[in-house]
Amino acid sequence: MSDFDVVGKSYPQIDGMEKSMGKTKFVSDLILPNMLYGRIVRSPYAHARIRHIDTSRAESLTGVKAIVTYADTPGIKFGPRTEDWTIFASDKARFCGDEIAAVAAVDEDIAEEALELIKVEYEELPIVSDPLEAMEPGAPLVHEDKPGNVAFEFKIEAGDLDQAFKDSYIIYEDRYYTNQVYQAYLEPMGALADVDLSGRITLWVGTQIPNMMRMTYAKALGVSPDNIQVIVPEYGGAFGAKMENNVHLVAVVLAQKAGRPVKIINTRRDDFIAGNPRVPMYIDIKLGATKEGIITGKDVRVVGGAGARVVYAQAIVSTACYRVDSLYRFRHVRSKGYTVYTNTVPTSCFRGFGNAQMTFVLESALDMVADQLNIDPADLRIRNGVGPNEVSVHGWEVTSCGLKDCILRATEAVNWKDKRQRKKPFKGIGLSCCNHVSGNRAFVREFDGGAGIVRVGLDGRVTVYHGESDMGQGQKTAFAQIVAERLGLPLNTVHVATVDTDISPFGFGSFATRGTLMGGNGVLAAANEALKQLAEVAADMLEVNPGDIQCRNEGFFVKGSPDTSVPFKEVANQAAFARRGAPVVGVGFYKPLTVFPDPETKYGNISPAYPFACQIAEVEVDPDTGQVIVLNFAAAHDVGRAINPMATEGQIQGGVAQGLGWTLMENMVTEKEGIGNPDFLDYITPTALDVPNITPILVEPIEPNGPYGAKGIGEPALNPAMSAITNAIYNATGIRIKELPVSAEKILAELKKRLA
Amino acid sequence: MSDFDVVGKSYPQIDGMEKSMGKTKFVSDLILPNMLYGRIVRSPYAHARIRHIDTSRAESLTGVKAIVTYADTPGIKFGPRTEDWTIFASDKARFCGDEIAAVAAVDEDIAEEALELIKVEYEELPIVSDPLEAMEPGAPLVHEDKPGNVAFEFKIEAGDLDQAFKDSYIIYEDRYYTNQVYQAYLEPMGALADVDLSGRITLWVGTQIPNMMRMTYAKALGVSPDNIQVIVPEYGGAFGAKMENNVHLVAVVLAQKAGRPVKIINTRRDDFIAGNPRVPMYIDIKLGATKEGIITGKDVRVVGGAGARVVYAQAIVSTACYRVDSLYRFRHVRSKGYTVYTNTVPTSCFRGFGNAQMTFVLESALDMVADQLNIDPADLRIRNGVGPNEVSVHGWEVTSCGLKDCILRATEAVNWKDKRQRKKPFKGIGLSCCNHVSGNRAFVREFDGGAGIVRVGLDGRVTVYHGESDMGQGQKTAFAQIVAERLGLPLNTVHVATVDTDISPFGFGSFATRGTLMGGNGVLAAANEALKQLAEVAADMLEVNPGDIQCRNEGFFVKGSPDTSVPFKEVANQAAFARRGAPVVGVGFYKPLTVFPDPETKYGNISPAYPFACQIAEVEVDPDTGQVIVLNFAAAHDVGRAINPMATEGQIQGGVAQGLGWTLMENMVTEKEGIGNPDFLDYITPTALDVPNITPILVEPIEPNGPYGAKGIGEPALNPAMSAITNAIYNATGIRIKELPVSAEKILAELKKRLA
Repeated sequence: MSDFDVVGKSYPQIDGMEKSMGKTKFVSDLILPNMLYGRIVRSPYAHARIRHIDTSRAESLTGVKAIVTYADTPGIKFGPRTEDWTIFASDKARFCGDEIAAVAAVDEDIAEEALELIKVEYEELPIVSDPLEAMEPGAPLVHEDKPGNVAFEFKIEAGDLDQAFKDSYIIYEDRYYTNQVYQAYLEPMGALADVDLSGRITLWVGTQIPNMMRMTYAKALGVSPDNIQVIVPEYGGAFGAKMENNVHLVAVVLAQKAGRPVKIINTRRDDFIAGNPRVPMYIDIKLGATKEGIITGKDVRVVGGAGARVVYAQAIVSTACYRVDSLYRFRHVRSKGYTVYTNTVPTSCFRGFGNAQMTFVLESALDMVADQLNIDPADLRIRNGVGPNEVSVHGWEVTSCGLKDCILRATEAVNWKDKRQRKKPFKGIGLSCCNHVSGNRAFVREFDGGAGIVRVGLDGRVTVYHGESDMGQGQKTAFAQIVAERLGLPLNTVHVATVDTDISPFGFGSFATRGTLMGGNGVLAAANEALKQLAEVAADMLEVNPGDIQCRNEGFFVKGSPDTSVPFKEVANQAAFARRGAPVVGVGFYKPLTVFPDPETKYGNISPAYPFACQIAEVEVDPDTGQVIVLNFAAAHDVGRAINPMATEGQIQGGVAQGLGWTLMENMVTEKEGIGNPDFLDYITPTALDVPNITPILVEPIEPNGPYGAKGIGEPALNPAMSAITNAIYNATGIRIKELPVSAEKILAELKKRLA
Repeated sequence: MSDFDVVGKSYPQIDGMEKSMGKTKFVSDLILPNMLYGRIVRSPYAHARIRHIDTSRAESLTGVKAIVTYADTPGIKFGPRTEDWTIFASDKARFCGDEIAAVAAVDEDIAEEALELIKVEYEELPIVSDPLEAMEPGAPLVHEDKPGNVAFEFKIEAGDLDQAFKDSYIIYEDRYYTNQVYQAYLEPMGALADVDLSGRITLWVGTQIPNMMRMTYAKALGVSPDNIQVIVPEYGGAFGAKMENNVHLVAVVLAQKAGRPVKIINTRRDDFIAGNPRVPMYIDIKLGATKEGIITGKDVRVVGGAGARVVYAQAIVSTACYRVDSLYRFRHVRSKGYTVYTNTVPTSCFRGFGNAQMTFVLESALDMVADQLNIDPADLRIRNGVGPNEVSVHGWEVTSCGLKDCILRATEAVNWKDKRQRKKPFKGIGLSCCNHVSGNRAFVREFDGGAGIVRVGLDGRVTVYHGESDMGQGQKTAFAQIVAERLGLPLNTVHVATVDTDISPFGFGSFATRGTLMGGNGVLAAANEALKQLAEVAADMLEVNPGDIQCRNEGFFVKGSPDTSVPFKEVANQAAFARRGAPVVGVGFYKPLTVFPDPETKYGNISPAYPFACQIAEVEVDPDTGQVIVLNFAAAHDVGRAINPMATEGQIQGGVAQGLGWTLMENMVTEKEGIGNPDFLDYITPTALDVPNITPILVEPIEPNGPYGAKGIGEPALNPAMSAITNAIYNATGIRIKELPVSAEKILAELKKRLA
């Protein structure tokens, strides 16, 4: 029998039934009495001076209640990391989609009609779209105060790289490019905003970071953060995208002006042209290795295209620069990163946060090294991979580590050795590893961790409050399991509230694969606090010392004599009545022993726990068409203890499918007129028919810093997929994919070149 | 300088601006996505067997989504005190307005149209409307299991009444009648109900008793209380009426059947014919007194008309029977009460809760005694009135008592002695006293008290959670003041949440004038708990012991050295960050030392504190028309410390105005076809033009059991008004009003009789 009743068992997501039956109210479903509908006028030009905005005709349209432009905002420059952003464009538009004006009307049709009546005079300016071109002398400046369009430079170096390269048996060097992709969540971004007479703002928004968003928006709106309440309803996916975005602030400014609630939900086009897709990167990589396949040194240069605003691109580029340095026993490394402005849609977070881009590059390069040295790619990774209780070159303290087990179990699952040795024509098998974090201490110096509140009602109803966000990944279910386990309750008696910043604890939010570990430890601590109070009441009822009280199976019992017990509900009821209606409220928190990186050397320890993975793809390439078919996929993930194996496997399958889409299908086309394929007709994502059998393999070394031993899974589920596929293509055809996405045309051209 | 910064100062209600500007969302304003509109088919007969209900035509109407009758309910008999109630009439309708069926449709017009299409076959039964007639042998039975239609009998007796009457110098004896009046709140009753896929019910309802309602409705619906969440939005008044009512349950049953949210808001007619107006009472009173005006004994018999369901009528009749026994130094008393079913709308709570009815009778009788003995009515009350630290005949422990001061200050304010002595023709002045409670321990044996939660957010935003209800009386403002005072903050930084049973503490609710004392003590205890946590953080920051920390003026300082201080906001921020996002949450409760009355003798102590009052009316009677004009009013109230003098005075002015309406204008006419005047055209309430100058006088003996010394004011504001006016009419004309309301016709007839 397992030590656990709820943790480690598979459950459908606790909100799954409501969602599958269409009962869930998403942000787009919300209505408020007297609510208006907002729409945004966006720049049709990638770079243009705004000469004049004429709203008079729109204003006289019946049903239009407010029109706002930059002039209606406090005009404060802001941004979550870099203050290069205003709520509306002031003097010039910097990308096709930049916010110019907005309208709120009594219905969507009138709002749409009013958009057409707002006349903006532009003066077109020269544009730059490619980050490398943007760094060239003479390139048009996106922000006049940033010469060379370089928003940020990042450098990190350790060991003696030049010597390491000299000592190498081989050197591999190449340039890769990872393209811009869209997060393709089901529900577009949007918000419902209401403002009370004191000016206090309530914002219903599907966001991964309700608490941090609140601080950014307080800055943008020139108010105190406590004048903003962010409520997170159920929302339809995010994958990193649903952080700060002007669409939310526009709703607020409209609500302020109209004195009525305003809802704006992006059209799909709005979402493509003014969302925050993945940071495209040019990555130069140079690897040295010994004859035995020990990597001696690594040098990389990353140029990331931020688009017209930095948003989080800077942090993404720096993550790309050095997160992989803790995957293998690198000792001599150097990375330079450039975050570069262009006249394109601002790019930002997308599952993987830069590590996805670099994992593609590093794992492609390692494959080439293995090939040159004629070493099995799996063996090469095992020889270099970190193990438990190691400290990486940048000070990261790896506690649990299942990397080697992931490689062994994935290769075993697909019969790797055999398939590599008995290769068939145009069939291939490729492997890729990755590491990641469970929270990122590099984000804010002052703060790391998680908190929770567990309320036990009169009738024993348990409600869990947290400050993270469930974008559909199952965070609520994991929290419910953790608390149910601790309180000895069945899962369906524990309820997890969505975030309301007025009620929930402060939390960083759902990014950096931090939810389960940070939030989970927070709600576990809260459950412990609640339990302490309940145990005192139970001890009173059973006439023993609170220290002798244990709980399991919906009751409290005396240690060693399980028959002397009292049901949980009775204890909860007694607690509430004895305390004259005051519910048991456990408030708890988790403070991880992470180390903020040194600003100069970046030496530190950014996460309490690091997940690892190995994914293997099997492909077949059609020699007549160049088409790549992924035949089979195995994905072994070190997740610490899987709180909910079904959900963890779901994350893995979703991550692989998303990686397959990125590798083989998805690409945002940037044209002079902006995104050329801003819809799901032209921007193709995988359907069920495109996705092969995926075998998820859970490797579960118990993580000492995780709640019940858990680490994160969200991002590593994706990270290795792209290079696993391209390494399989290489194995199948000898063609090294250096630019995403792979297209049948490119493969066919390469195949023809070889035949010629 | 006052010892207090916030308590004892006048503030407009904290939600007043939103209400006066029309921004507040009341229950009737609420909408949910996919919401339906409900309407109820009500019996047109006061008593009729239901032969058949044909819903087929209504069902086929486009837009109708659900039709429900008794067959769609669990058929459980329930009721807050007496289980004589079902969600819909099963076999027979017992009053005009009884719930027969209901419909939910996509809009209100279709719902209305569907009502007409539901055909009900009735068989009329003999009816009884008057409670005295209902007690007669052979009267039709409203409930077959209650012979004589007597739902409850109540008896209380103390001392030796027969001997006391024998020893009396005079005996006064008469029969009075108090009529049925409607609470006339602005927003009719209603609810919005939603049911999730697990069957859990959310009910948005303007109710005084969210927590108790939840328990009653759980019984009615056959579910566990934790399967019901009651959320109390802002709502438009109650005055006692907004307790349990079928309209809420009908919304739930419709939502269950339709699988969509359903809102029902009563029409004004619905609200008149199926709300819960005041219990009409026949009261026989017999008083004995010595020559010096000392009351020797009191005997009363109360017959209260419950209508077709008891609801709270039983408790109201028993309150009428003996609450006044603790107003004066009665030693020999006997009361009998009969709660009687009739085929009329169920009656229930209305400001005063039976004590209003009996105060009218007792204070009228005392006036007659004073008159017979030629003693000044004010002196008579002073001679008999209780004082501080006295124990009444039924064990009630009066702590603070400002009764005598109330009489002295009210009489002084109107120049009483002078006006009584120099009486002018057809002008009169009359006085009445009352006592009341601040909470009623007689309600539930197991429980009394209050609880609160005080949350201090990251930025120092303070939110107060309580389980009571603000029906417009200003409860939230009082709680905000209490917490602001304790935390040394300005009022506008403290926010008070409306009740959500999933979040708020359990509370009995707003009745029995209990909110400020019970809830106030609860939130004060919670503030103390929050303060304890904050003081620890402040002590750390200031490097002193927590015991040396004090707070005031938005900061914490070291006792004795006010310059060593740190702002409140910084402490809150530090507390939240040091605790990794866990907010400071103070949970506190108040357990009063009340004594549940002995079931036999009713000896006990039902409230921690008793408010007192003396009101004086000056009237002029037009000898030609019989019309009574109230010229002036003084109302002196012992409220303990007035937390918010402006709000307390507002309660007094509102109570007097309501009493004036009851005395001179308001009357629900019961006809064979039900209420004959179910609208504000025919049911007349006072307007501003009808209300004279009212001088509120606050008498403030500090109550040791109250928060900052406060007692309640809600009900006593009304209680003495009726008899103050009728005593003034007696003084003006010699006509003793024994039946409410007073009408010009009755006065004129009496005047003519005297002239004849």
